Amino acid sequence: MRAIVQRVSKATVTVGDEQISSIGRGLCVLLGISVEDTQRDADYIVRKILNLRLFEDENGRAWSKSVMDRDFEVLCVSQFTLQCILKGNKPDFHSAMPAELAQPFYNSILENMRSAYKPEFIKDGKFGAAMQVHIQNDGPVTVELTSPTGPIDPKQLSKLEKQQQRKEKTRSKGPSESGREKGALRSRQDPNASSGAEGDVSSEREP
Amino acid sequence: MRAIVQRVSKATVTVGDEQISSIGRGLCVLLGISVEDTQRDADYIVRKILNLRLFEDENGRAWSKSVMDRDFEVLCVSQFTLQCILKGNKPDFHSAMPAELAQPFYNSILENMRSAYKPEFIKDGKFGAAMQVHIQNDGPVTVELTSPTGPIDPKQLSKLEKQQQRKEKTRSKGPSESGREKGALRSRQDPNASSGAEGDVSSEREP
Repeated sequence: MRAIVQRVSKATVTVGDEQISSIGRGLCVLLGISVEDTQRDADYIVRKILNLRLFEDENGRAWSKSVMDRDFEVLCVSQFTLQCILKGNKPDFHSAMPAELAQPFYNSILENMRSAYKPEFIKDGKFGAAMQVHIQNDGPVTVELTSPTGPIDPKQLSKLEKQQQRKEKTRSKGPSESGREKGALRSRQDPNASSGAEGDVSSEREP
Repeated sequence: MRAIVQRVSKATVTVGDEQISSIGRGLCVLLGISVEDTQRDADYIVRKILNLRLFEDENGRAWSKSVMDRDFEVLCVSQFTLQCILKGNKPDFHSAMPAELAQPFYNSILENMRSAYKPEFIKDGKFGAAMQVHIQNDGPVTVELTSPTGPIDPKQLSKLEKQQQRKEKTRSKGPSESGREKGALRSRQDPNASSGAEGDVSSEREP
């Protein structure tokens, strides 16, 4: 499952001349479900959307608050084209979940998001309709989320493997460590796990 | 290098109260450059943006024409937040190319796009400024592009491996083939040996 999360000042959806949905500050999420996605992917994506720290706090400190922390809204729109494989320059969408399966799954994802936050703060497009999605990207700030069973970045994996090896060495020489780092490589495959002991290298970058 | 490509009816960029950029039908591209990106990544992304078939032809047949085929415009905005690694729920941007390197690289990418198409059809944001990017996503249609040295989709890799195996079989039975396909898989698995130094990981970046 892949989600493109855009931080917005506002966002609306129109179908024809009719505005069917609208939010103020918050997140506009374009959600692409693949044929292989399961409830586990959905749970991960919902949790990340709601808890991602893409907003500043009351003192203006960037990347410190989530959409829920700030009482902002979410506009979620189904977007099968995110499950795209290029055949040359032609997009192929066979890895997207077929609409008849994707629609109930997508609806259940929205329901989960509503249960985990405030139902009235989760807005929707119109599944399968030709829409105009008006996104006022604020920053801009855009983040791509990929669920655990989705693509893995091999560079990151190889980096984690090297870190792992270094830690193994350190462990065999030095004082005993907790098993926490051992989990680091696994946690890439299971990104739900905590980030591990890399230390805080968080940036304070403004959007 | 990662690009989020949105098909748009129109798109504009404002900085403060001033509208600094605007396109009609075409593509709005949010472009995230990583510390490891090279000219090769840039060339791939430029080629794909300009040739991706995201538009219908004159008979309404979908996915048949590129932005160049249709004489549409491109609004490209630099977006370092696409090079995001989550540490729990906090985004970390140390894998984004630092602004002082990214800005000239980004400008060269725009120039390449202008040379390959029509200079006046390629619009820009304002590098590093706090912008509002107004995107009227038409469909919606959104595609993520990742350059060859970027993340690999393991599903696609496994497909390539199977293709490879089939070809090996054919080769052992049938007429000889060039070594080209053999190289294709290798280059997929080791997309970029020359990642370069990690360089500065400065934060404090504007978008």
